Amino acid sequence: MANSRYEYVKRFELADELLPEVWIVIRIDGRGFTKFSQAHEFEKPNDVRALCLMNASAKAVVEDQPDCIFAYGVSDEYSFVLRKSTSLYQRRASKLVSVFVSYFASNFVHRWPDFFPDKNLQYLPAFDGRAVCYPTAAILRDYLAWRQVDCHINNQYNACYWALVKSGATPAEAQATIKGTQADFKNELLFKRFGINYSTLPAIFRKGTSIYRKEVQKAPPAKKLRISGRGEKNTTASSPNNDSPPMTMEDKRNLSIALANMEGGGATGVRGGGTVRATSSALRGERRAGTAEKATAGGRSL
Amino acid sequence: MANSRYEYVKRFELADELLPEVWIVIRIDGRGFTKFSQAHEFEKPNDVRALCLMNASAKAVVEDQPDCIFAYGVSDEYSFVLRKSTSLYQRRASKLVSVFVSYFASNFVHRWPDFFPDKNLQYLPAFDGRAVCYPTAAILRDYLAWRQVDCHINNQYNACYWALVKSGATPAEAQATIKGTQADFKNELLFKRFGINYSTLPAIFRKGTSIYRKEVQKAPPAKKLRISGRGEKNTTASSPNNDSPPMTMEDKRNLSIALANMEGGGATGVRGGGTVRATSSALRGERRAGTAEKATAGGRSL
Amino acid sequence: MANSRYEYVKRFELADELLPEVWIVIRIDGRGFTKFSQAHEFEKPNDVRALCLMNASAKAVVEDQPDCIFAYGVSDEYSFVLRKSTSLYQRRASKLVSVFVSYFASNFVHRWPDFFPDKNLQYLPAFDGRAVCYPTAAILRDYLAWRQVDCHINNQYNACYWALVKSGATPAEAQATIKGTQADFKNELLFKRFGINYSTLPAIFRKGTSIYRKEVQKAPPAKKLRISGRGEKNTTASSPNNDSPPMTMEDKRNLSIALANMEGGGATGVRGGGTVRATSSALRGERRAGTAEKATAGGRSL
Amino acid sequence: MANSRYEYVKRFELADELLPEVWIVIRIDGRGFTKFSQAHEFEKPNDVRALCLMNASAKAVVEDQPDCIFAYGVSDEYSFVLRKSTSLYQRRASKLVSVFVSYFASNFVHRWPDFFPDKNLQYLPAFDGRAVCYPTAAILRDYLAWRQVDCHINNQYNACYWALVKSGATPAEAQATIKGTQADFKNELLFKRFGINYSTLPAIFRKGTSIYRKEVQKAPPAKKLRISGRGEKNTTASSPNNDSPPMTMEDKRNLSIALANMEGGGATGVRGGGTVRATSSALRGERRAGTAEKATAGGRSL
Repeated sequence: MANSRYEYVKRFELADELLPEVWIVIRIDGRGFTKFSQAHEFEKPNDVRALCLMNASAKAVVEDQPDCIFAYGVSDEYSFVLRKSTSLYQRRASKLVSVFVSYFASNFVHRWPDFFPDKNLQYLPAFDGRAVCYPTAAILRDYLAWRQVDCHINNQYNACYWALVKSGATPAEAQATIKGTQADFKNELLFKRFGINYSTLPAIFRKGTSIYRKEVQKAPPAKKLRISGRGEKNTTASSPNNDSPPMTMEDKRNLSIALANMEGGGATGVRGGGTVRATSSALRGERRAGTAEKATAGGRSL
Repeated sequence: MANSRYEYVKRFELADELLPEVWIVIRIDGRGFTKFSQAHEFEKPNDVRALCLMNASAKAVVEDQPDCIFAYGVSDEYSFVLRKSTSLYQRRASKLVSVFVSYFASNFVHRWPDFFPDKNLQYLPAFDGRAVCYPTAAILRDYLAWRQVDCHINNQYNACYWALVKSGATPAEAQATIKGTQADFKNELLFKRFGINYSTLPAIFRKGTSIYRKEVQKAPPAKKLRISGRGEKNTTASSPNNDSPPMTMEDKRNLSIALANMEGGGATGVRGGGTVRATSSALRGERRAGTAEKATAGGRSL
Repeated sequence: MANSRYEYVKRFELADELLPEVWIVIRIDGRGFTKFSQAHEFEKPNDVRALCLMNASAKAVVEDQPDCIFAYGVSDEYSFVLRKSTSLYQRRASKLVSVFVSYFASNFVHRWPDFFPDKNLQYLPAFDGRAVCYPTAAILRDYLAWRQVDCHINNQYNACYWALVKSGATPAEAQATIKGTQADFKNELLFKRFGINYSTLPAIFRKGTSIYRKEVQKAPPAKKLRISGRGEKNTTASSPNNDSPPMTMEDKRNLSIALANMEGGGATGVRGGGTVRATSSALRGERRAGTAEKATAGGRSL
Repeated sequence: MANSRYEYVKRFELADELLPEVWIVIRIDGRGFTKFSQAHEFEKPNDVRALCLMNASAKAVVEDQPDCIFAYGVSDEYSFVLRKSTSLYQRRASKLVSVFVSYFASNFVHRWPDFFPDKNLQYLPAFDGRAVCYPTAAILRDYLAWRQVDCHINNQYNACYWALVKSGATPAEAQATIKGTQADFKNELLFKRFGINYSTLPAIFRKGTSIYRKEVQKAPPAKKLRISGRGEKNTTASSPNNDSPPMTMEDKRNLSIALANMEGGGATGVRGGGTVRATSSALRGERRAGTAEKATAGGRSL
């Protein structure tokens, strides 16, 4: 075979399998999205259309990958959780990351006009990704809590910053006012100066978005995701991949540990503002409020 | 800081840096493109529109990444060569693979209507990717030769297969006729039975496509890529990244070793059918013919 | 600094940290010990002096490394279990493996005359090693069970093979007699033909050796290991490393899960023939017998 | 098979192959040798017996491993260079490191009485090790130069420090005198105050030790190493491994590039004070002197 002379080069492709029986999280981030959001004039501090586009793209990824059992998104970032026992692509890190991130990008670009009908893409986005392993449900839960607390902190900061800037402060003045301040100070600033009750801001801004599978009792296809957000078309996903086994009882138990203290899910597969975890005291008040919001979060906040 | 309690989870993000001072090749492949090509009714054995869409997407990646000094594509696969000394993303494998593959996917989806104006995407593509290190220019050259020989072998097989099928053979009959036969047999089959002179088939089918940077003498931006294929719009790339140093003399010397025996480049940055290497005797006749074709390959073959 | 010109070469030392919060097992094996055992005329099928030398060397390693909480040995192989939370050598695989394996080799060579007073080393041994991560106590338990079942199967086979050979069979005849036979057949062969009751063979041969830490109530040094085997001198370990924190409650709980169903430990830190796990039905009878043996295993079997 | 139930645990043993066709250096270091040298009352600033023990152990490793084509030692550290094309242990990092480091440790302990006949080991040594890949002969050369310059700098510092301390300075005074000074200052300090001509100190202290294979014209075994140092017995190595192919012309060419500017080898396989590389101007004078010394280095300096 003419090719055999060169086939030795295949040996340079080294293995990159991830440890078996640990949770794999594939986290993706928009590359340079500060600039991207300026170039596309995203609303500040949050652009609900951009978030819904992120959510729709992530939902497509989850639909495409039966072994992805949960996803959590905030800003231009999404974390996809694979079941511990997945053997998807033999757990090869490069394969996993590349397929997830490219399918996400395909969706983001394709669905752009649905969410920004009046705005063309000025240039095309890229996303970086990585695969990280977490050995236990407790650590996975802490990972998700980490991302959600980040969402909260950034959002509170941004709410103050943009309220100040929109009211006439220079960026430097705005920064100086809030730098190093605590949550209480920021909440009071928002309320006293701008009449904003932080806890009533849309949950999608304060808490991010969770995507999970909803049990459906009837015949296959057994898993169906719905997203309740505005602008989401009711497309049926064409997944080439829907052949993985259903979640086992252990999958479910593990996932429920990981997501312990989340408010009970509604009928929707994608919730705006689902709290991932209840242990952060800073978030406790929020979460309680969140419980009430949950039922309507989709319709109201997106 | 409220977040610090969870920040320990960052320790689970392990390093994946690639060895310094070796060539990095990022190779991407369409996921399930046999099915994708059927769903979108690609012409057989080659669909020039699909190849040009691949080329346009790859060219966008090369424009976006100054440290990518060469790319080679065949069918639904593209290999991007990074300069040995690149410190792009600290040579982290996941970062490199994810940004390249997602930007490629963004372009593929965004440019689809330019190449398939009359055909909507039936579902969205994903691409898998990997990063592989090659220590020397000679091995890199063998890698590229491996991919090009693969292109040749597959194309010759497919040319025979589809000629037989289009002339009425069943798939099984076509397979039986060509299975295990040598290049000479296939060439004769094509010529005697179908009047096809294999060596005059478009070079883009027989040899794949090379993308490289063209030296421009005038003022910065010093590097400019052009693609001469049909359907390529003369867009100016908006790259957020064009800040890498120019190629050094050693880069150039190394690249010229890697690409030794390629036919001399024309004025175009993307050539259809550039032969990567001349050492495979099976390809020798081809390559000589290729030299003549080169000047017009863009116009004729795409 | 004169050296700075070359210091770039440090960049080639890539990270090899192991995932946090998983059990690390460092398993070492004698290199080419079939030949080594012949060159040193080890007794067949088992040489108790060689096993005791292995045990003494392993005990020294455990004494040297406070984060090593358990070790299991069979034949020329030893597995060292590190606590899940260890940060020893920042969990760098190369460091861990090299220090464990070299300290083991140092001890093996140094202690040789204690166990083989009448036999010089004909040539020096080497050991290979690897570090493997196990995410849960249950999987760690299965790992240890895997090694112990291996011990049992090999020992039963070897008991038959050498009984046959010592009674006049050629190696080929011996192999032919036992190849592919079940445990019952081998037990009967031993009993009927050679009057050997397999279950009364020394536990150290049938079940391998476990090393674990014994809680000592009095003042520091809080941890003390003893080995009850013959030939073991009562040296005090000079460990440069005895500064790690004591085992936490969680360490203890995890370890006890991993070692569930082991017979209760006696007063000795090293037991000959401790059963690691009780789930293998093939071993169930053995283990019960093992319980009775345990108290005297050291004195009787070593 | 009783074992199959547990064999899944093998999947946790992940691949750790090193990139093909790059130089592999296995570097080992004594663990905690500052303390070890105190506990064994090594002479300061250099103990020639300890260095010769290191050299004898390293020579044994090179003899044991035909694919190890060069070794360089300084203080309690040794670097072993494997040929680029080696497939030893399938280039698995853990295997390579563990076998090299454990065989070194075996030799160090076993040969101790030959070099320290009047001093027992107070406790046993461990060594850590790592495998590092270098893509080109030029970078390998820089790696070796880095180690040799380190040797030089440390030795010059230590020569001054111990001369001062032995003449009555406190450690703090000695440090204060030499901290931050240049090579010239130190040379003058040694000469003016202590009558020491640094360049006439034994080459083994100033330049470290190189081990390489000597071509032998007669019949196999074709490769033979000798060490000329005092105390080295003329043992014949019993290597279980001497079956690797002879060095190819390319191996030789590469190695000669890596070792360019070394003084020409004498008849001995181990040279005390071989200069690895000539490019460091700080070492230039040394090296010239080194050339003259070479012939007698073994006899005089060891």
